[in-house]
Amino acid sequence: MPAKINRQVVIAGIPQDRLEVSHYAMREAPVSELDENQTLVRTLLISMDPVSRARITGAPGGLQIGDVMPGSGIGQIEASRHPEFARGQIVECQTGWQDYSVHGPETLSTFTRLGPLTHHLSLYGVSGLTGYFGMAEAGAPKPGETVLVSAAGGAVGHIAGQVAKIRGARVVGIVSSQEKAGWLTGTLGYDAAIDRRAGPLGAAIKQACPEGVDLYFDNVGGEMLETALTRMKDHGRIICCGYASQYDTQAPVMATKGVPAMLIGKRLRMEGFVVMDYYDQKQTAREQLSAWLNAGKLRLSIDLLEGLERAPEGFAGLFNGENRGKRMIRVAEEI
Amino acid sequence: MPAKINRQVVIAGIPQDRLEVSHYAMREAPVSELDENQTLVRTLLISMDPVSRARITGAPGGLQIGDVMPGSGIGQIEASRHPEFARGQIVECQTGWQDYSVHGPETLSTFTRLGPLTHHLSLYGVSGLTGYFGMAEAGAPKPGETVLVSAAGGAVGHIAGQVAKIRGARVVGIVSSQEKAGWLTGTLGYDAAIDRRAGPLGAAIKQACPEGVDLYFDNVGGEMLETALTRMKDHGRIICCGYASQYDTQAPVMATKGVPAMLIGKRLRMEGFVVMDYYDQKQTAREQLSAWLNAGKLRLSIDLLEGLERAPEGFAGLFNGENRGKRMIRVAEEI
Repeated sequence: MPAKINRQVVIAGIPQDRLEVSHYAMREAPVSELDENQTLVRTLLISMDPVSRARITGAPGGLQIGDVMPGSGIGQIEASRHPEFARGQIVECQTGWQDYSVHGPETLSTFTRLGPLTHHLSLYGVSGLTGYFGMAEAGAPKPGETVLVSAAGGAVGHIAGQVAKIRGARVVGIVSSQEKAGWLTGTLGYDAAIDRRAGPLGAAIKQACPEGVDLYFDNVGGEMLETALTRMKDHGRIICCGYASQYDTQAPVMATKGVPAMLIGKRLRMEGFVVMDYYDQKQTAREQLSAWLNAGKLRLSIDLLEGLERAPEGFAGLFNGENRGKRMIRVAEEI
Repeated sequence: MPAKINRQVVIAGIPQDRLEVSHYAMREAPVSELDENQTLVRTLLISMDPVSRARITGAPGGLQIGDVMPGSGIGQIEASRHPEFARGQIVECQTGWQDYSVHGPETLSTFTRLGPLTHHLSLYGVSGLTGYFGMAEAGAPKPGETVLVSAAGGAVGHIAGQVAKIRGARVVGIVSSQEKAGWLTGTLGYDAAIDRRAGPLGAAIKQACPEGVDLYFDNVGGEMLETALTRMKDHGRIICCGYASQYDTQAPVMATKGVPAMLIGKRLRMEGFVVMDYYDQKQTAREQLSAWLNAGKLRLSIDLLEGLERAPEGFAGLFNGENRGKRMIRVAEEI
């Protein structure tokens, strides 16, 4: 059997400021032989995860030039020397940005199919579950409350906002274009949407939430979080889910103005959220999400780019707010 | 009747940096005649409240040169033209830093005596109730948890720490001298105490709380809060009660490093606390505090300075951490 060629997207440079396509290069490497108990996985889909950007700073322990870009994904088993895994099986794993990856059994997981594989890397995967648990469990909006979501058209945000809506809240989203704002209100059922590039954010939030914000679901951090603090109602809650504004820079601002003064003045509660803490309930959550999807109560948006070679542009574009919903790369079709 | 002379401590200068005694001056003014429904109150005790420092910045709306320094206190009615108030009655009110103040009925409140008046301006007043509700209700430590208290020898802190201890927690206090640290562990029953001036704070917290902090009760803000964040256990809670480190400066640092990143990484909950939100339960709280005091479970420390003229030094000294427990000024004796 001729040796398979493994195309790999590797780090070619460390950004001084914003990440660009030129910080990546494509390399070809042979696929290594399997040791006993190892499995060869052919990559089908790769998830574009903004938080991975924080590993490309050149810092010790982070990614270095020549390293394959890491990433989670879904693959199909191409060859197996482990008794529990067979050729053709679909698995979730850290595929990295490459055609093939080799795994021991502990780094592969199987799952019950609830729909297309793209749904499993979005709605039923980390981003969808983050939107679900972060809003339904951690945020727990009450009917009639005003909920503000940042990066509201993103992989997590577009689910979180719709979950709040299903729970009876009034939902306002912040996005990065007028077009996306229209999509939020026209298609996803948001009550209002703010284009953060259209003018001063504080005034826009005030207009969209004249009585203030009960619950702010924050994916962005930075100035957006600081501005949101000024628009919270007394006793409001903030779920800190991410801080995407500080991922794509070599000089992240890691302090937040208004803390603790505004927390005290307004008696706010601010809470960090990580989806893994809720994974013991993930099957129930997936069934709930599936039921809402099938009933037409929830719309899933997948932002799919075709071809491994598009991963660098697809990833860099996340930080311009290009994506609608979950961005992923299709590397190969399921056989 | 000869006109009474009202000694008043007034603002004589706006600090460029730290507040000093020279920023105050003593003035004498006549006591004004009472209008109908007004009451003349002779000041007995004045509370020294660090947060008042924030009003002496020269900013519009704040205190200006020549203004009488505001302050809450306890007084005795000297003359009354209101039917519900009689000469000799004891009242709580905004006395200001002066011998006499004139009030309408809505700015006076009476209270059920549970002990000496000094107890009412401390344990049963704002600072004691803040320590009680902030710890018992907002912080709600569980038996065996590690609780860290900043400004732990202060008016609020020394109550908060003891309440945590009564609730079965392991309690560690941060104070500003070795002597106070000894007082915390020797007299107040803290399990450990840290002198913040003795060395790097993070290392000291790590030594005193080797498994991390479950609950941080923060009166200080600034770098102390930032350092405490690094020593929290996963899922730890932070009660933001004050930020005394930023009161005595014209350039307060109003941002906190580690927010939101550390909140997310450690799944922390951070919550602003204001005692007034619990005032519907204040009588119950006072009875509980009184019972603990009488049973010897709680020690109250009052830091009493004699004479209105000592108010400026007493107030400025708060920001050097001079006080043990609640600092107040005795202006006159109850008759």
